[in-house]
Amino acid sequence: MIPETQNLESFLRSAVSLVDEKLDQIVPAETVEPADLHRAIRHSLFAGGKRFRPAFVFAVGNTFGVETKKLLSLAAAIEMIHTYSLIHDDLPSMDDDDLRRGHETCHVKFGEATAILAGDALETIAFQVLAEDEDLTAEIRVRLISEVARGAGTPTGMVAGQHVDLESEGKDISVEELEKIHRGKTGAMIRVSARAAAIIAEVSEKDLEAITKFASNLGLLFQITDDLLDVTQTTEVLGKTAGKDVLSEKATYPSFYGLDGTRKLAEKVHRETIAGLEEIEKPTEILRSIADYILDRRN
Amino acid sequence: MIPETQNLESFLRSAVSLVDEKLDQIVPAETVEPADLHRAIRHSLFAGGKRFRPAFVFAVGNTFGVETKKLLSLAAAIEMIHTYSLIHDDLPSMDDDDLRRGHETCHVKFGEATAILAGDALETIAFQVLAEDEDLTAEIRVRLISEVARGAGTPTGMVAGQHVDLESEGKDISVEELEKIHRGKTGAMIRVSARAAAIIAEVSEKDLEAITKFASNLGLLFQITDDLLDVTQTTEVLGKTAGKDVLSEKATYPSFYGLDGTRKLAEKVHRETIAGLEEIEKPTEILRSIADYILDRRN
Repeated sequence: MIPETQNLESFLRSAVSLVDEKLDQIVPAETVEPADLHRAIRHSLFAGGKRFRPAFVFAVGNTFGVETKKLLSLAAAIEMIHTYSLIHDDLPSMDDDDLRRGHETCHVKFGEATAILAGDALETIAFQVLAEDEDLTAEIRVRLISEVARGAGTPTGMVAGQHVDLESEGKDISVEELEKIHRGKTGAMIRVSARAAAIIAEVSEKDLEAITKFASNLGLLFQITDDLLDVTQTTEVLGKTAGKDVLSEKATYPSFYGLDGTRKLAEKVHRETIAGLEEIEKPTEILRSIADYILDRRN
Repeated sequence: MIPETQNLESFLRSAVSLVDEKLDQIVPAETVEPADLHRAIRHSLFAGGKRFRPAFVFAVGNTFGVETKKLLSLAAAIEMIHTYSLIHDDLPSMDDDDLRRGHETCHVKFGEATAILAGDALETIAFQVLAEDEDLTAEIRVRLISEVARGAGTPTGMVAGQHVDLESEGKDISVEELEKIHRGKTGAMIRVSARAAAIIAEVSEKDLEAITKFASNLGLLFQITDDLLDVTQTTEVLGKTAGKDVLSEKATYPSFYGLDGTRKLAEKVHRETIAGLEEIEKPTEILRSIADYILDRRN
């Protein structure tokens, strides 16, 4: 278990090493046939992602008193879903990106067909690891799978959000429509990270509602700062192509509010996010630190 | 419940209408946003597939005494996984096909990005419907999800088979390698159809082994006759591009054994398939009829 008294930096480092170890156990080795498929999966999975979602799973689970051992499959599953979505979103017919997590994108290195299949396979492994986790009761496992499937799918999940995002490129959309895109595309799996960890803790309905609200706000904050970083940071720092949103004519928070306005919005959403923690009757320092970290992040 | 005394044709018709009704309930309507994504999903899902896998689920489940109600989610989930795999396999970077089930392929009608996302979404809905089926215990549900995930994924499942298939195009491969491709690409989900239905029936280990062996042989027979149809039938009858295997330089059974040799092989595998039914101490007429149907099928 990650002690809550650690500072955030060491908490995040622990989260990376814990989830990476789990992922390495689950995903077939590069020597297993079809080797090229497994190399492609591992190329994208171990490209140095920040593992924000797994860290958030651990933070919420620990807050509600769950041992980290019981959170590992969930953390790994959510990271696999996230990675598969990056692989598919980077494809030429989608966002057409060459750089991700500081490396060549999966299709650039392994070809489009292998990249599509690597994403498809990652999605199946995510559900497999949840279904087979003997540290959790079957009742909990089916609830987690339901949460992850709804969060990753359609009509309110990640795939739906990505679809609306692609359809909106180059179009005039309202800030409400922008929020709707992000609630699906990024927000849904951040909400699932929190909700599913809370489900493992078998929290009350009241706490589940409170943590869902916190995660919704955090997801919004995450996206606002993501939009800011796209404008203000270099490709080198981000590990993905900077300035991409403007090039692809995507609506972003800075395109609505400008840089200063967006920074102010981020601060406002941050305040709302942490205010929500008052509803949770547990020590929530780690969740507060995560909200601070998302506000101030540099990549 | 589908009575076992019906003839096969009416059994197959019932299977189609049962699974189609279930699919229609599960998948978001075309009016639900993002509407274009749901239209794409429904375009491919309701394009008049033969629903062989759902029918096989019902046949195996009924053989072991399970009510059809308890088989509907499984049948629908397996059909959704199958449909998503067709959508992705038809993409330009994969098999690049314009025609499927007698209609334009998903990417031709809706564009590549939407087709990729439609496939991704179908995969999530498949796991969701299994996780949320309250007619099954949570223990059964997690076993089904594990079976489906392994069958659809890698290293021994459908995605792995598709990857090896793509890598083998234009290469000299042995008949053993060809069988390995099909064991994954087509065989895995046919095996899962049988195994998962038997798991719902809570059959003995011995029966699970016997039905797995039957399904493996049936899957092989299915592929051999598929290869024959690709050479002998018209595009119109097949609803997909005929003669595709030769054009894309794919190894097939006819390319190894010629047409007559392949027909003889099909008859041999058919005999082995039905011989396996002797190990099952239940009335297996319907399974026998399905094996006969696969041997003699015209599309």
